[in-house]
Amino acid sequence: MSRWEPDAPERLERAALELFVAHGFDGVTVPQIAERAGLTTRTFFRHFADKREVLFAGEDVIPNRVAELMALAPDGAPPLELIAGGFEAMAPMFEGRVDQLRQRRAVIAGHDGLREREMRKRADLCDSITAGFVARGVDELDAKLLAETTGTIFRVGLDRWMDSPERGLVTVLRETMSALIAVTEGSRQPSSAER
Amino acid sequence: MSRWEPDAPERLERAALELFVAHGFDGVTVPQIAERAGLTTRTFFRHFADKREVLFAGEDVIPNRVAELMALAPDGAPPLELIAGGFEAMAPMFEGRVDQLRQRRAVIAGHDGLREREMRKRADLCDSITAGFVARGVDELDAKLLAETTGTIFRVGLDRWMDSPERGLVTVLRETMSALIAVTEGSRQPSSAER
Repeated sequence: MSRWEPDAPERLERAALELFVAHGFDGVTVPQIAERAGLTTRTFFRHFADKREVLFAGEDVIPNRVAELMALAPDGAPPLELIAGGFEAMAPMFEGRVDQLRQRRAVIAGHDGLREREMRKRADLCDSITAGFVARGVDELDAKLLAETTGTIFRVGLDRWMDSPERGLVTVLRETMSALIAVTEGSRQPSSAER
Repeated sequence: MSRWEPDAPERLERAALELFVAHGFDGVTVPQIAERAGLTTRTFFRHFADKREVLFAGEDVIPNRVAELMALAPDGAPPLELIAGGFEAMAPMFEGRVDQLRQRRAVIAGHDGLREREMRKRADLCDSITAGFVARGVDELDAKLLAETTGTIFRVGLDRWMDSPERGLVTVLRETMSALIAVTEGSRQPSSAER
């Protein structure tokens, strides 16, 4: 069995998502997931604490990676350039996984407890980005607004990309960011017809 | 007892919040709330379906009021002017209630189930605002981004106002909106040092 270990997490994730989509999250057990993946429950528990973690383990690393990226960015980088750079650095974690991400989205949308977990994760990520900006000398209010805006662009962009992945996640995120800047700017210059 | 009816909801809310803050949401029963308010449990249930509704009944009307306001706004009003007008129209629902809102915030922050409910309410409001903009001819993406941005400004602004209410909610919301526009604009003109 050990020769299968290297891709065990991916196989377990794939099996779990297929089962969750077919039977609902609550209708699936860990032995069923392991069986479909051709692995033992013991192997399952070597990689995931429980079946919920199959949906969140990959995502839980994001706040730390974001914190690292923000600490490494050059001094004086304008905030939204930094955010755009962060999107580029994060995109490979998502690209190539569109089928799993779509399944994951459907499973979470249909389950209150999972939505709660997802929203809490979102709030944690927002706190992490806020702290990153404050550490870079941005004032608390601006840091919070930048973090919320980053979250908005990422969530809206990721959703759009899942619906038409052929254009590439980075492109879609960039477009989404431009759209957000345009709608907020537009409101400041009501007479302008540039859009 | 009936002569007390007109202010029963307010008295029940005040009593509930005090008890929730003191004993935690799960440590308080409806009879205790009614007793502290000097009312019967029967009166309680005439106004609220359960103790959780004391925290959410007032807020549940918001998506409908927002939808009404958006439908009534003049054609061609720039989106963020419309949002600013909406904030002004909604502010009286919050001003004068800062003590209750602070207590409510503390109770919700300390309880996972209540946070879930609060976040769902937030998502519903966002959907309602998105639909309002789409009905006004704004494209789907811009509508979604405007709705999320409205939510960000409102939540961040309301939090700041609760910490220093003397400046007035409308003023704080206006400042928060300007700060959001400035941080996103600033990123587009990295060479500008206007901030």
